[in-house]
Amino acid sequence: MIDSLQAVFSGRLICDAADMAPFLTDWRGKWTGNALAIAQPDTTDGVAAVVRWCKAHNVPIVPQGGNTSMSGSATPDTSGNALVLSLTRLNRIRATDPTNNTMTVEAGCVLQTVQEHARGHNRLFPLSLAAQGSCTIGGNLATNAGGVQVLQYGNARELCLGLEVVTPQGEIWDGLRGLRKDNSGYDLRDLYIGAEGTLGIITAASLKLFPLPVAQINAWLNLNSLGDALTLLDLARARLGGTLTAFEVMNANCWDLLHEQCPDLKPALAVRSPWSVLIEISELKSQEAASTGLQALLEAALETELISDAAIAQNGTQFREFWSLREHMSEAQSRAGKNIKHDISVRISEIPKFVASTDLAITNTYPQARMIVFGHLGDGNLHYNVSPHKGERGDAFPALEAAINRITHDAVAAHAGSISAEHGLGSLRRIEAARYKSDTELRLMRAIKDALDPERLMNPGKGLPL
Amino acid sequence: MIDSLQAVFSGRLICDAADMAPFLTDWRGKWTGNALAIAQPDTTDGVAAVVRWCKAHNVPIVPQGGNTSMSGSATPDTSGNALVLSLTRLNRIRATDPTNNTMTVEAGCVLQTVQEHARGHNRLFPLSLAAQGSCTIGGNLATNAGGVQVLQYGNARELCLGLEVVTPQGEIWDGLRGLRKDNSGYDLRDLYIGAEGTLGIITAASLKLFPLPVAQINAWLNLNSLGDALTLLDLARARLGGTLTAFEVMNANCWDLLHEQCPDLKPALAVRSPWSVLIEISELKSQEAASTGLQALLEAALETELISDAAIAQNGTQFREFWSLREHMSEAQSRAGKNIKHDISVRISEIPKFVASTDLAITNTYPQARMIVFGHLGDGNLHYNVSPHKGERGDAFPALEAAINRITHDAVAAHAGSISAEHGLGSLRRIEAARYKSDTELRLMRAIKDALDPERLMNPGKGLPL
Repeated sequence: MIDSLQAVFSGRLICDAADMAPFLTDWRGKWTGNALAIAQPDTTDGVAAVVRWCKAHNVPIVPQGGNTSMSGSATPDTSGNALVLSLTRLNRIRATDPTNNTMTVEAGCVLQTVQEHARGHNRLFPLSLAAQGSCTIGGNLATNAGGVQVLQYGNARELCLGLEVVTPQGEIWDGLRGLRKDNSGYDLRDLYIGAEGTLGIITAASLKLFPLPVAQINAWLNLNSLGDALTLLDLARARLGGTLTAFEVMNANCWDLLHEQCPDLKPALAVRSPWSVLIEISELKSQEAASTGLQALLEAALETELISDAAIAQNGTQFREFWSLREHMSEAQSRAGKNIKHDISVRISEIPKFVASTDLAITNTYPQARMIVFGHLGDGNLHYNVSPHKGERGDAFPALEAAINRITHDAVAAHAGSISAEHGLGSLRRIEAARYKSDTELRLMRAIKDALDPERLMNPGKGLPL
Repeated sequence: MIDSLQAVFSGRLICDAADMAPFLTDWRGKWTGNALAIAQPDTTDGVAAVVRWCKAHNVPIVPQGGNTSMSGSATPDTSGNALVLSLTRLNRIRATDPTNNTMTVEAGCVLQTVQEHARGHNRLFPLSLAAQGSCTIGGNLATNAGGVQVLQYGNARELCLGLEVVTPQGEIWDGLRGLRKDNSGYDLRDLYIGAEGTLGIITAASLKLFPLPVAQINAWLNLNSLGDALTLLDLARARLGGTLTAFEVMNANCWDLLHEQCPDLKPALAVRSPWSVLIEISELKSQEAASTGLQALLEAALETELISDAAIAQNGTQFREFWSLREHMSEAQSRAGKNIKHDISVRISEIPKFVASTDLAITNTYPQARMIVFGHLGDGNLHYNVSPHKGERGDAFPALEAAINRITHDAVAAHAGSISAEHGLGSLRRIEAARYKSDTELRLMRAIKDALDPERLMNPGKGLPL
């Protein structure tokens, strides 16, 4: 059967087991599946032809970009029945329009390539996340990726003006509009964004660009409480407006873990503090304007004792060192042994209460848990994680994971939050997520799935069980 | 039959013809219909009960807010079969959370009330448009309203974090999340936004708030071409970033019309110019920062001859006078006789070409047309209108309207634009809009309509004919 597939499209078809292997396991090695084959079309027509072939042969399709999902969104199940449709060869930049502040790119473009291309036109494409060197823009949009610049620029959803999509029927929907305003029908774009490939395959996107900042500065701050961090965030917004581009927090356990596991990293501040904030300012005017704005904010914050200590990056090297501390959190957790991760959001105003009560609920029941809490405070999004204490390896964690997930996610639900803020549901959180959805919400989503993918061939086993 | 409706909800039911009249004609008197009755529930449960009653009795529903649609979205047809479901009594502000920068309001809240309530909490709700004294937030969201602050803050869509919706089945979907990040299922919110009540009834919304600017300043500028206006826009963005909150253009015909029809309005600049720009800056820092930023921009623009003249508002009175010129464009058009209006968008970079070639195409064929071109340049959205020449009344316009619409909208389509940028399709543009949609797009939208409103009772005859 698979031989007939090669005839319908011009790209690459991989059937050899060894060649298929890298596509069958996610980057962390958490999910391993099997597949009929890997198809790598290099045109949208090719994607459509492959999809029509799959429909004709009743073959499920698993779309895959850079294979960097945190939730197992892009790996097939173990049945070997599915075709992995890899978009990485569909990677041209089709158009750049600096006057309209847009660029049109194919789904397989690597995020960093998109950022660099924009920069080459003196523009910023602000989506920025750890996997940017290998994740693709198609995957970013399919999972509505977040990252560290959401505070000012929004999620992937807010950075996209239009899409090209291959439907489960193998038609091509050309919705590649570069328009800021268009009220002429239902919002298909936003339906495909975040749908994790379960309604169709994103093949290209029209992306929003922004003026490129001429200067950036950051600072590492010590604070006594999350409440103070919220007050500081409010002050920073009111003073800095759109120049405030990041506001990341971490608790003291993060600081400890970083210095235990990554001793080569220089601490930004020598004193351990209950909470740290990494704040970033991006200025269109000048380095001086950035410094002045940040200094004035920090002086006000020191005066009112919102912060206990502050280190402003003195140069580009230090700027990157400060970011490096934040970016090493995942690495430090990996080195420390087994861990349990959550990607949650609640209303920003609820964060202090949520963290205090949930920390207590988990550590009271499971004293072996060390709460590793960090993330994007300005978005109400925390990576609310659990690692072992110093010297331990967390060997009991796999047995505890379901119970700790339940405590955490029940607490999120009690605070009207989301158990999947920026990573998507994939195969990891689909059953849990359904638990917190109303029957009405599930019915509406099922109606949409039935309407657009009645044969249910699109990325089965990912997203909500509908 | 209608007697049984009063029993199912506690709000107001209007059956008397005279009392019904104001709900049956839009504010401009362009569309007049008839209805079985007007129901005004004052709770979401009441809305749901009315919808269930309509479903049981197979009665079509026309949701209505402030009845200020520009496209006939909220008026019933002449059959008298439909129920008008007026949301104006569902108008409580349910919650305000300044720390989370959100407020939760019911659909019938008047936009200006929402703005003022936010201001009372030292926050900005930026949606701003001519009808704000009477339009409702539910209608704003159902039509994805735009207005004069979209450049910086986005459309109604971008200002909404969550919705409560009554489905065509009379269920209540509680999607009132105040979260910046939530990737746990399909994006129902954005499907209802802009759907013009054809998929369900928005009963409440969680809205985004922003820091309140402490200072605003504007200036009126004379320019020689739209190309120069684009260059200036680019320069303004690069220098002013998020403080640039409006960038409105009008052509010389607008200037003439204003001074012919509204002689009491003081011109901002005495010299007539091919194009004028109204630029606005909103600052979180100080009035001085706003002035300095604007002055530096205008000096650079004068030096490079991007602008030929400029008047900076010297005080609050002049600031409002400058805006008043822009806001009187509709009034000036009404006074000048019959007119033909279009609400179009194209990529910003295409605007000069679009305007030059379409102006020519219309005036070559119809010399009686005076092109009245103004709008939101920063959004690529023009009100591309036609009025009679001085001393004429446009009596031939009704007979020409279809042909002039066709020239304009074909040109929009040739530039890959939208024939409905911010007003919605309503009953005005539904058939024309369908003309420019692909079969695939119409099929997808029809599938969604079938899935969510299979009985097709929701606002029939509005939006695309699906």
